[in-house]
Amino acid sequence: MFEQLGLIGCGLMGGSFALALKRAKLVERVVGYSKSPSTTEHAQQLGVIDAAAPSALLAVSGADLVLIAVPVAASEATFAAIRSGISAETLVMDVGSTKSDVIEAARRGLQAQFGSFVPAHPIAGKERSGVEHADAALYAGRQVVLTPVETTRLGHIQRAATLWSAIGAQVLTMTPQAHDSAFAAVSHLPHLLAFAFMSGIASQPDGQRFLELAGPGFRDFTRIAAGDPTMWRDVLLANREQVLLQAQSFRRALDALEAMMQAGDSSALEDAIAAASGMRSQWKMGSGSTLG
Amino acid sequence: MFEQLGLIGCGLMGGSFALALKRAKLVERVVGYSKSPSTTEHAQQLGVIDAAAPSALLAVSGADLVLIAVPVAASEATFAAIRSGISAETLVMDVGSTKSDVIEAARRGLQAQFGSFVPAHPIAGKERSGVEHADAALYAGRQVVLTPVETTRLGHIQRAATLWSAIGAQVLTMTPQAHDSAFAAVSHLPHLLAFAFMSGIASQPDGQRFLELAGPGFRDFTRIAAGDPTMWRDVLLANREQVLLQAQSFRRALDALEAMMQAGDSSALEDAIAAASGMRSQWKMGSGSTLG
Repeated sequence: MFEQLGLIGCGLMGGSFALALKRAKLVERVVGYSKSPSTTEHAQQLGVIDAAAPSALLAVSGADLVLIAVPVAASEATFAAIRSGISAETLVMDVGSTKSDVIEAARRGLQAQFGSFVPAHPIAGKERSGVEHADAALYAGRQVVLTPVETTRLGHIQRAATLWSAIGAQVLTMTPQAHDSAFAAVSHLPHLLAFAFMSGIASQPDGQRFLELAGPGFRDFTRIAAGDPTMWRDVLLANREQVLLQAQSFRRALDALEAMMQAGDSSALEDAIAAASGMRSQWKMGSGSTLG
Repeated sequence: MFEQLGLIGCGLMGGSFALALKRAKLVERVVGYSKSPSTTEHAQQLGVIDAAAPSALLAVSGADLVLIAVPVAASEATFAAIRSGISAETLVMDVGSTKSDVIEAARRGLQAQFGSFVPAHPIAGKERSGVEHADAALYAGRQVVLTPVETTRLGHIQRAATLWSAIGAQVLTMTPQAHDSAFAAVSHLPHLLAFAFMSGIASQPDGQRFLELAGPGFRDFTRIAAGDPTMWRDVLLANREQVLLQAQSFRRALDALEAMMQAGDSSALEDAIAAASGMRSQWKMGSGSTLG
């Protein structure tokens, strides 16, 4: 049980965390801060936060739990802004989709208090952002990846795991590197490919006419191409090295399939498609418990 | 109104066509043939066909309407097998996802009766194939593209359009080339990319571990990678030239995005993602009526 959550960033992710903690009676009060005063005000009207702070530092003053839920590119400035309000006893977490870069930002921003920071990535979200879509059940049944480093305080890691479990999430722990390479493969690269695919269509004179004929396969394949441009710009740059490595692996596979088509090698092509199809048919979402 | 439908291929597509015609009282009887006798038998048990023929030729004898619903690679042999049963008055259609290759197969297979063939591609389907999933409503509200050529009999084109409209489909007409380039762009290339993406994951030692962390974005992006290997092998080979052209356009777009990432050009990357995201957000399925 925590006395005060200092919430920096009162959007979908932060707001849902506050609501989940309140519903589970895990926190007594929530003090929130957002860059935009109207967001903070809105969060207070909706009962997501109990008090609005005029700065990030004031939001964390007196808090024993802090959640940073801002775009990853704003991480370092946020950590620096709250440093003097953090003690060794304060549990600080984030919700970013990339981990190595946020950890470096925390190391520079929090300095002596870096050991209080437990990096976290809840694998949850919605098509629509904003505190008005915040949902106490957003994290229930979803995976949360914690990526502590050598200097992270063990007690904080344990409290973080207990807290996420208490709001219904399934907690996994791995290194920041393992996290970033896995998410480059299964999330960041698919977004890059979907953006490139739409961009390839847009570059053609007949592109608009083509789109008028697109059906359900196109709809699902490109759904992630409608993602938020600022957020995805930040993710692709923050995890650039791993994403580019994954893109190389994809290009080798595409080269091989195109070579089979060019050679008219019907049996190799069928085998390759059958392997891909079989792997996808066997996949089930959220099987990560084996990693725990 | 037709007297007899000769149905070659009693699977999902062919079976659904027969059921739709029966429900709309557009045909008096359906005689079916499938390569596998058990499929034909099953189709008869389910009431999809009224009589089972022991050969494709016998299925079309006496038919005033013929539907070829076989894998595209089997088209030429099928057209050749039924040629002597077809007259100038018989309306012959197919349901293939590629058109130029099927038209060439029909030209060689049907010879003097080629003018009876109206190439058709209903943009409909299900995750599951087989006559047991045949559905009288499969084509209702979906688009059907007709791609006649110069020697196609005009009267047959008009009867084909009337027939598809009568079972609730929306009929578009375009050249085979326009069809194949559009579907290379919005359907065949996405399948190739989804197969390549799964194959790229499979090639990595940590691939299986990565998959355990995949979420809803991955699920939708890769859904089409579970497609039928034989069907997609045939489509990718039949429309190879257009698919490879579309792959080039995609590669140029991917090159550009990767270059922005490598250069750390945050503003160009955001603009490119915003353009892709905006285009996808504005897209709505089935807006092809403007092409009619």
